[in-house]
Amino acid sequence: MSGGPATRLKVCLEVSLITKNASPARGTKDILPKEAQLRSWAVNRILEAYARHGFSQIEVPIIEGIEWLTGGVGGENEKLLFKILKRGEKLDLAAATSEDDLCDLALRFDLTVPLTRYYAANQSQLPLPFKAIQIGPVFRAERPQKGRFRQFTQCDIDIIGEPSYLGEMELIAASAEALCALSLRGFEIKINDRRALESFSRHCGIEEGRSGEFLVALDKLDKIGVSGVAKELESKSFQHGAIDKAVGLIELLGNGMEPLEFYSEIGVGKEVIDQLEKINSFSRELGGAAFSSALDPTVVRGMGYYTGTVFEVAYPGWSSSIAGGGRYDKMLERYGKDSPAVGFSLGFERILTILLEMHEPVQAVAQRYLTILFEEGEEFKPAFELAGFYRDAGYNVSLRHRKAKLGNQLKRLEAEANLARSHGDYHGVVVYGEDEEPRELP
Amino acid sequence: MSGGPATRLKVCLEVSLITKNASPARGTKDILPKEAQLRSWAVNRILEAYARHGFSQIEVPIIEGIEWLTGGVGGENEKLLFKILKRGEKLDLAAATSEDDLCDLALRFDLTVPLTRYYAANQSQLPLPFKAIQIGPVFRAERPQKGRFRQFTQCDIDIIGEPSYLGEMELIAASAEALCALSLRGFEIKINDRRALESFSRHCGIEEGRSGEFLVALDKLDKIGVSGVAKELESKSFQHGAIDKAVGLIELLGNGMEPLEFYSEIGVGKEVIDQLEKINSFSRELGGAAFSSALDPTVVRGMGYYTGTVFEVAYPGWSSSIAGGGRYDKMLERYGKDSPAVGFSLGFERILTILLEMHEPVQAVAQRYLTILFEEGEEFKPAFELAGFYRDAGYNVSLRHRKAKLGNQLKRLEAEANLARSHGDYHGVVVYGEDEEPRELP
Repeated sequence: MSGGPATRLKVCLEVSLITKNASPARGTKDILPKEAQLRSWAVNRILEAYARHGFSQIEVPIIEGIEWLTGGVGGENEKLLFKILKRGEKLDLAAATSEDDLCDLALRFDLTVPLTRYYAANQSQLPLPFKAIQIGPVFRAERPQKGRFRQFTQCDIDIIGEPSYLGEMELIAASAEALCALSLRGFEIKINDRRALESFSRHCGIEEGRSGEFLVALDKLDKIGVSGVAKELESKSFQHGAIDKAVGLIELLGNGMEPLEFYSEIGVGKEVIDQLEKINSFSRELGGAAFSSALDPTVVRGMGYYTGTVFEVAYPGWSSSIAGGGRYDKMLERYGKDSPAVGFSLGFERILTILLEMHEPVQAVAQRYLTILFEEGEEFKPAFELAGFYRDAGYNVSLRHRKAKLGNQLKRLEAEANLARSHGDYHGVVVYGEDEEPRELP
Repeated sequence: MSGGPATRLKVCLEVSLITKNASPARGTKDILPKEAQLRSWAVNRILEAYARHGFSQIEVPIIEGIEWLTGGVGGENEKLLFKILKRGEKLDLAAATSEDDLCDLALRFDLTVPLTRYYAANQSQLPLPFKAIQIGPVFRAERPQKGRFRQFTQCDIDIIGEPSYLGEMELIAASAEALCALSLRGFEIKINDRRALESFSRHCGIEEGRSGEFLVALDKLDKIGVSGVAKELESKSFQHGAIDKAVGLIELLGNGMEPLEFYSEIGVGKEVIDQLEKINSFSRELGGAAFSSALDPTVVRGMGYYTGTVFEVAYPGWSSSIAGGGRYDKMLERYGKDSPAVGFSLGFERILTILLEMHEPVQAVAQRYLTILFEEGEEFKPAFELAGFYRDAGYNVSLRHRKAKLGNQLKRLEAEANLARSHGDYHGVVVYGEDEEPRELP
């Protein structure tokens, strides 16, 4: 062999031979075929449900100018940015004194912040209200832990330009239909309003300017309980009177006080209460036997950009929510646009984890695999024709040359089928010239 | 309003107000709804076709350890890496003397190199041969130019573990079916072999070790013609005798010499010729009236890792190929695996550009949009019920509150419909309580 590409390749392979473990980068994961099928199935069910409700898919780049992702609206997520090194002449390592000098792009950490840039850039080509679907990967340099990844898929719908609670209703209707289309049942939609939380904070006597911190602690109620929240508030040196009042109020709720009574008690305005009632009664009626809906004055949702309604979806047996969202009417101001906006995000990765353990979705992606074995040589034409016949009959057909020792080959095929087998999959074989029909591999 | 999240948001918005143009990052693009629908449609048609041929979708992370992407097999693409800055304590800006000290991850530049890492990591859970589908974004820091982006979608199938030309046949059958499923017809599959190219180089008397450079020049034949190739070889100081011989041979082909005769002329081995003939006659027969197939001794394909068959697909009226691939039997050696491999990649972005101008695909994604206008207040229940009815009848339904001046509202709806309208889309409206049936917006 002369010194062509193959030889060059060989040399570079010898140089670069990497013996280390081939695992994916820390906090990322390789997706195996069965999960990939289920992801693809889930994405299509979700897209269909959303489209029926008048939403349209868009795609926003995965890399954005770093200035868009560091403006403050991303909150804690901005601290988890993967930043991209400048390239070529733009990179002056010797002169760089900070990360900012080195980087010009970053990986998006969510789909909401890029959506606002997208809307500002493309508004003239979009309808009003604009009802967007986005499904795609986002990136956060979090400390990896069980079930939490550095690359994960988000699945959002947003309505830009609908100021009334009709936006919330459309989001709830579309999201609930999507969850039902994935065969999820029995979830609970919990609804609250940031303005009610402001009243809560004010009512407890939280100092001006510290309401945000108060809500951060309250947000942990699900995980750490009321005593945990009290401890957290103490550790942040809130006044004892305020803490006692907050704890007392949360306990009232725990002891069965009706949310509407609670809202009145803490001085939430009539307009906000009316709206919450309308959204909740709509959602409850929509749910029927499939899912439930409730006002929950302790729902916060983490992001600082919410200005009105917030919601999240709980699933039985799961401590974390499987979906959530809210109204963020002020975020477009960043681009000089005064456009109200409201969004709902499905926790795609959590939902996938649930689906992987459910019968119905896994059955829905069950495949019928068929291998056709044929003699090397002239038999390939009829064998390929047979493959076409079985494809049209619903099989996923592969072709292989028949080995001299057919028995051994069939045993290896069985072993492979068992390796790849998932609930509901069929694995069969046709030995061309011997079998008339596929035989199932045991 | 107290100093809660909303106030904090307001402050940060004032600080970060960005007045610059909201365009996406240089070389990336925002995808509008109609193109997103077509992309989603194309992905599903391709996935279906590939699945029928026994391929299974997998997903590999978008970010990879930088060592996997700089081993040399990526050739020129490795120079176009987007590198990701280390984070936290790992980043020591003061001590860094090179880019390598600053970065630990990078964005994948193709799907083939990550596939080999994936296979090495997950082989024990995968069948053999393993037939993989990958569709996803890749990133190259190229100088942006018309139709060439820094983020773009690749769409690959690969077979790992099939040493014979049966792998090539399965790839051609699956890829051709995918292209036909996208309504493309009349394309030509051009087939060659790296071993034949080595013979070509040797026959011309190209020096040992310079065959790769020779092929890089030959690869440009489509774009710069035979005189351009000659000039390029001269500029690289190849011997005049070798250049004359190469030019003469290329001209023989141009003047109608049969590829098989050409292969014999330049001393390609019988085994290679036999295999090329088998693959080509299979592909030609498969194509029938839908597509054609031909041996083409001048097809090179850029990547250095190919070791055997190479193919590409030409589409009438397009100077660049719309698909391509080849056999890369040695690449897995990098991970200590001796696994033959062959892959075929569709030029997804180019194909999309073609589809956007075709009647059939655009018709296939045509939507029926319906807006239901209803009075704010108690009418929402029957209006949402009506929406459900029309969704089940195939409409994508949105709800809006009816404005006092209905005539003006309908005019605005018309304007929006016309803005968003694409070939084949239907836009209708139902005024609840007035209309019995949807009326189409003019």
